[in-house]
Amino acid sequence: MSATKLIDQVFQHVRQTALLQSTIALLEWDQHTKMPAGAAQWRADQIAALAKQIHDRRTDSQLGDWLAEATAELDGGDSQTAVNIRQLKKNYERQTKLPGELVVALARASSEGQTAWVEARKNNDFASFAGTLKLIFDLKREQAQAIGYVDHPYDALIDEYEPGAKTAEVAMTLKGLCDELVPLVAAIQEKTGATDPSILRRTYAVEKQQQFGREVSAEIGFDYDRGRLDVTHHPFCTELGPSDCRITTRYDEQFFSGSFFGTLHEAGHGIYEQGLPADQYGLPLGTYCSLGIHESQSRLWENLVGRSQAFWQHYFSQAQSLFPASLADVNQDDFYKAVNHVQPSLIRVEADEATYNLHIAIRFELETALIKDDLAVADLPAAWNEKYQEYLGITPPSDADGVLQDVHWAAGLVGYFPTYSLGNLYASQFFEAAEAELGELAPSFAKGHFQPLKNWLNQNIHRHGKGMTGPELGLAVTNQPLGHEQLMKHLRSKYSAIYGL
Amino acid sequence: MSATKLIDQVFQHVRQTALLQSTIALLEWDQHTKMPAGAAQWRADQIAALAKQIHDRRTDSQLGDWLAEATAELDGGDSQTAVNIRQLKKNYERQTKLPGELVVALARASSEGQTAWVEARKNNDFASFAGTLKLIFDLKREQAQAIGYVDHPYDALIDEYEPGAKTAEVAMTLKGLCDELVPLVAAIQEKTGATDPSILRRTYAVEKQQQFGREVSAEIGFDYDRGRLDVTHHPFCTELGPSDCRITTRYDEQFFSGSFFGTLHEAGHGIYEQGLPADQYGLPLGTYCSLGIHESQSRLWENLVGRSQAFWQHYFSQAQSLFPASLADVNQDDFYKAVNHVQPSLIRVEADEATYNLHIAIRFELETALIKDDLAVADLPAAWNEKYQEYLGITPPSDADGVLQDVHWAAGLVGYFPTYSLGNLYASQFFEAAEAELGELAPSFAKGHFQPLKNWLNQNIHRHGKGMTGPELGLAVTNQPLGHEQLMKHLRSKYSAIYGL
Repeated sequence: MSATKLIDQVFQHVRQTALLQSTIALLEWDQHTKMPAGAAQWRADQIAALAKQIHDRRTDSQLGDWLAEATAELDGGDSQTAVNIRQLKKNYERQTKLPGELVVALARASSEGQTAWVEARKNNDFASFAGTLKLIFDLKREQAQAIGYVDHPYDALIDEYEPGAKTAEVAMTLKGLCDELVPLVAAIQEKTGATDPSILRRTYAVEKQQQFGREVSAEIGFDYDRGRLDVTHHPFCTELGPSDCRITTRYDEQFFSGSFFGTLHEAGHGIYEQGLPADQYGLPLGTYCSLGIHESQSRLWENLVGRSQAFWQHYFSQAQSLFPASLADVNQDDFYKAVNHVQPSLIRVEADEATYNLHIAIRFELETALIKDDLAVADLPAAWNEKYQEYLGITPPSDADGVLQDVHWAAGLVGYFPTYSLGNLYASQFFEAAEAELGELAPSFAKGHFQPLKNWLNQNIHRHGKGMTGPELGLAVTNQPLGHEQLMKHLRSKYSAIYGL
Repeated sequence: MSATKLIDQVFQHVRQTALLQSTIALLEWDQHTKMPAGAAQWRADQIAALAKQIHDRRTDSQLGDWLAEATAELDGGDSQTAVNIRQLKKNYERQTKLPGELVVALARASSEGQTAWVEARKNNDFASFAGTLKLIFDLKREQAQAIGYVDHPYDALIDEYEPGAKTAEVAMTLKGLCDELVPLVAAIQEKTGATDPSILRRTYAVEKQQQFGREVSAEIGFDYDRGRLDVTHHPFCTELGPSDCRITTRYDEQFFSGSFFGTLHEAGHGIYEQGLPADQYGLPLGTYCSLGIHESQSRLWENLVGRSQAFWQHYFSQAQSLFPASLADVNQDDFYKAVNHVQPSLIRVEADEATYNLHIAIRFELETALIKDDLAVADLPAAWNEKYQEYLGITPPSDADGVLQDVHWAAGLVGYFPTYSLGNLYASQFFEAAEAELGELAPSFAKGHFQPLKNWLNQNIHRHGKGMTGPELGLAVTNQPLGHEQLMKHLRSKYSAIYGL
């Protein structure tokens, strides 16, 4: 077979898998947004039928043979084709390293885990969940063995979400960050009264929130001709094809920030998906780089843009006219301060820009210890509470507000948490690099101009797809390794002004 | 292999196909209701990928061998299993009779046909569409040859939509009906002024129409825990699983009837789907009997219930309080008369209960002549206009309002039209049979009680699935063959009172 024909075959095979994968994405999107309640069982069967097909395709030995042959034919190189084939080969090898029984056992355990977690959280009963959680960590340990690693079993797991990341490096990065965050948060804590977050807890009509979120997300660059915004309990972003990216949010009439910043966050994810090269859809070069890079895009728009002073210079009057009853007596500066209020709290998803990464560091330290068997599942609640005291100065009144708050471990997602913090770090570094090239961005935000930043992200981040790892991409864009200096500089500058530190 | 195991295998195979088919149904539903405009091409690819799989499964020779073996094992009989296997064998044989090239050619021609039709209709240019339409009829003729028939090539085509129906019988039935309809419509035409349809063209707020349609459709028995109602340009009903039936409608603020009766119509289809035995889902006994029987359920709720005097005795005051500005000065009787206004018109989908079947008869006569080569495609517009003059006394001012108004032929649907009229005939016969058993139904409608009728339909029509053909089911339920007496009796009685005939 000619090399061209061989590669065509591989790409066709992979794109066919992407067709099925994007169909599952629709089945899941519909399940969360539109599906009648009674249809759950059949929906699970539909998804399982396609998931089985996808797994069979991804581990198809014919695909493996083609990839081996194509690799030999190409003999290295940096052409797009070579990069795609190299990455596909890596994916194939990862998939086929896992014994079929382990895949099935993990799928079953994480399905049961989520059910057990819902019950345990409802009843504040960690003990009822401990057995399933132990099984999940046992299986994840087996998974790490099957995949292989040099230094730390967690290396094999984080690699699924953040290719190329190493446990030791992530630990060092997070430690450096927390060492500076903890005293910053403590200093802010001494300045209570500088911000009035109750402004955001007044009445904000849902319909107007919808309108505002939709308008602003379109203005920063989310393309509604190739996307949608819907309502779900747990907000998410999903892609159903090269021109079909859907984001969701939830509305609370008594809280402005949840839906507004949530919509900006998901729109940031969506802008990334919409910026991937459509002609590479389904291939690695048409796929997001890593979860950390994905999160950098959502956090950049949510925080570095949406929580900036310049942003509200442009949008505050619009907010005031949409919500006159709640904002007539508020000035722009107080509103800006309110959306940047810092408060150590128990719940990660509600955390502010300063404390958020402390929540992540806690989970990272706990899950690396669990996977290495340095911590027993039975001792997890106590360890959790200890770390919350250490990092945030508070102790959960119950496990439901503590160790049971996130679904991730129950769903078999181990190695996923740190990508949230990596995203925050990358976001600050990318933002600095963008300003180095484009000049200060605040003046354009103040005029409602977001196109320069969006284009820069398209050009420097999005168009590369999975052509590099996160660290490689970060280095290429910023000329420096990942670190916490930019994020801390941003936080210090912002909070010094707000809290008069 | 044991007979039980063999049958299990067959059913599993068929149910797996149903999983894929219902997934296509979601892809299509989403395309019409929610999908961003830019996503069309990828969606077509997703659907094509699953359609190919389904075709391969349905013509899988392994399935054919199993069905042959199972048929031999069962050796006739009337058990549910035997009925399912018999029907599956029939389906398999029909599928495998078509050469692969013909299937592909038909798919391509009807895809191109729809595109050409849209253009031709827009430009009122039949000639530009004639070539594609000729190709479609040539291919349908080939299809009829491949399937085989005794009397008329159309027999082989209508069988796909209305198993067991014969062209000659349908022709006779429609002729008998039209022979009585034409003079009835003429008599009504002489009584202009008895009804005032302009009442329905006042302003009806879309939101209130939505609320009303949803409430009433739920009250007649459409189960929203297992279904949805959405907005589309062309209304439809689709099932995405045993507990997921979705109906759609469209709203016009200046027209009450379109969405209201459209919603009742689609809800009637939906109540049928929801009444099929869920444990037989994907098998013939869990599948609708025929398109004619399906249409009987939609027309029964739309017309025999929704356009009855008793129905508006119950609902008119509710309509008045929802639309006070438009209905305050209207009385119940005038409203009832308005929704039953008869007016020969050019457009089938807007036709009233009396003229609707004349539209169908015209299409049936034309398509049987075309398929038999008794009429050339080039002569179709003239033949169309002649028949409109003959049956309805009007001539289309343009082909766009005439021969180009329906998509069916462009989409390769030949043999489909008569099922609309068969549905109207079955509906009247079923309604009479229901009243013979339950007593007069108007008094319960007047109280808003629809459960007795719905239960009767569940019991007598829905639960049989595809266990009988339409004619067999009709005979079992009504003890008489299909005819026009009941429909004409209903129309005469209604219009005599309204128009004082």
